[in-house]
Amino acid sequence: MGKNEKALKIYFCGSIRGGRQDAQLYHDLIDCLKVFGQVLTEHIGRSDLVDERYIPSREIHDRDLTWLQSADLVIAEVTTPSLGVGYELGRAVEMGKPILCLYRPQENKLLSGMISGSPGIIVEEYEGVVDAKRRIERFIKLND
Amino acid sequence: MGKNEKALKIYFCGSIRGGRQDAQLYHDLIDCLKVFGQVLTEHIGRSDLVDERYIPSREIHDRDLTWLQSADLVIAEVTTPSLGVGYELGRAVEMGKPILCLYRPQENKLLSGMISGSPGIIVEEYEGVVDAKRRIERFIKLND
Repeated sequence: MGKNEKALKIYFCGSIRGGRQDAQLYHDLIDCLKVFGQVLTEHIGRSDLVDERYIPSREIHDRDLTWLQSADLVIAEVTTPSLGVGYELGRAVEMGKPILCLYRPQENKLLSGMISGSPGIIVEEYEGVVDAKRRIERFIKLND
Repeated sequence: MGKNEKALKIYFCGSIRGGRQDAQLYHDLIDCLKVFGQVLTEHIGRSDLVDERYIPSREIHDRDLTWLQSADLVIAEVTTPSLGVGYELGRAVEMGKPILCLYRPQENKLLSGMISGSPGIIVEEYEGVVDAKRRIERFIKLND
């Protein structure tokens, strides 16, 4: 992209209504991402995100789509199955955005074949925040 | 569309790796859909779908995308959170396909705001196959 890394706009995707078991991890990943630029969806790491239940869905959708369209990079944590994350990834692929999906391998489970098989998505398996951070740095340098 | 209903190509989306608890329901919904046209993704209702684990993800992805591109209508069952279903819906919205999502309301859970808030998607809450069939018929007539 040839941009100053600090000016990067990053769209982070994590599960909301699909399950919040990884909310603290999203928070930690967003902290890593903030070193490189502006995280448009910083609220996804907030523990009080339940507030958004009172915003009409159409408003949430249109706000997030505007952010997605303006993003330089899309980074998703995809361990928890989520319709919203899948939808954002599908739209981002069609928009031609660079996309990194971070996945923690699970016993007796496989990542969606539509995500692992998408030529528009880079999938990286990882263990813990330190490992994720290394993979995020490499992805951002690759797209700089 | 003005096409003969029998010639309709229907892309049905249901959770695969996100969870197969609704597999029998997918089978029953696909049976309803077959009255109206060709269901491109009939395998989603098969109880032995586990076979697909041995097909490379890229092949699954590209086969399904080709079907999605050729489809006249997209109908999804979205009660089980699924990255693959979300991804297909995101891509189908970008392609401008008519999309119906069928959702069974759950206690203490909400459907993804990106799905319920998407202006490119019609969401219908339903209870059981008979109710779903009525909503499918109405949607297909609306797009005929």
